[in-house]
Amino acid sequence: MSDALTLRPANIADWPAMWTIFHAVIAGGDSYVFDPSTSENDASAYWFGPGIVSWVALEGERVVGMYKLVANQRDLGNHVANASFMVDPTVHGRGVGVTLGKHCLVEAKRAGFAAMQFNFVVASNHGAVKLWQKLGFTIVGTLPRAFRHATLGLVDAYVMYRFLDDIAD
Amino acid sequence: MSDALTLRPANIADWPAMWTIFHAVIAGGDSYVFDPSTSENDASAYWFGPGIVSWVALEGERVVGMYKLVANQRDLGNHVANASFMVDPTVHGRGVGVTLGKHCLVEAKRAGFAAMQFNFVVASNHGAVKLWQKLGFTIVGTLPRAFRHATLGLVDAYVMYRFLDDIAD
Repeated sequence: MSDALTLRPANIADWPAMWTIFHAVIAGGDSYVFDPSTSENDASAYWFGPGIVSWVALEGERVVGMYKLVANQRDLGNHVANASFMVDPTVHGRGVGVTLGKHCLVEAKRAGFAAMQFNFVVASNHGAVKLWQKLGFTIVGTLPRAFRHATLGLVDAYVMYRFLDDIAD
Repeated sequence: MSDALTLRPANIADWPAMWTIFHAVIAGGDSYVFDPSTSENDASAYWFGPGIVSWVALEGERVVGMYKLVANQRDLGNHVANASFMVDPTVHGRGVGVTLGKHCLVEAKRAGFAAMQFNFVVASNHGAVKLWQKLGFTIVGTLPRAFRHATLGLVDAYVMYRFLDDIAD
């Protein structure tokens, strides 16, 4: 567990650092649907825009990770949140993901969401699957061969879900 | 099975009829996430736009149903299609949904998709669930209490999936 982290809402001044992390995370083609050649415009639209709340985690003044929180569906499904997380690969193993995940669950609860859903967790991304299970998520669906992994070929993706009743707001 | 149907790509001249159907389908708040008060602008953006292929079914010159076909994910997940269907409630029971569904599977195969995924089939919408099962889809996930049904309260939604290997293109 990293205890030197500060979390705050992301702003556009964070974008150069966020773009560096984004690019590093998708470079492997092994964990996100984004093609490694995704443009900076597409990437920034993913993190900033109407209905998107993004947070960054800082070690000192350095951005080392980020998450976004949105409604997973509009209108009659908007009580379920969706979130995405990216951590600078050079700080992996220091608990940044856990800290971001826990923070995001609290923020989702505060925002009034009743549950959180991940739509596309790549099954071969064992670290992510284990992290979300540790944070209370269960696999509620398996999408067979839904992800074209850069080295493994077609692999499954999981839908993961968690109610927020037990999260303190 | 309706045999008097003609299917063709939708164009903007079809929109008044499509909007009437859209509004009738979402009015009950029991099958789609759209709030019954969804604006015409939001509705038209759902059916027409970049990356969206929409078809209409006609009885004579009357539009009685429609579907849209898109990629369910971008880039490394874009081999899986997503589709949505709406049928004029006044023609229910005459096979329009089956005809639209079969046509959509062929079009998806022609477009090069390897599978089709529905992200949010309301579990209490038994007619839809049975229709998709009849057309080869299986329930690969259950999203607990993910839909706020107008009369039943919180109900589950299903993720349904089907490979397209057996579809003739």
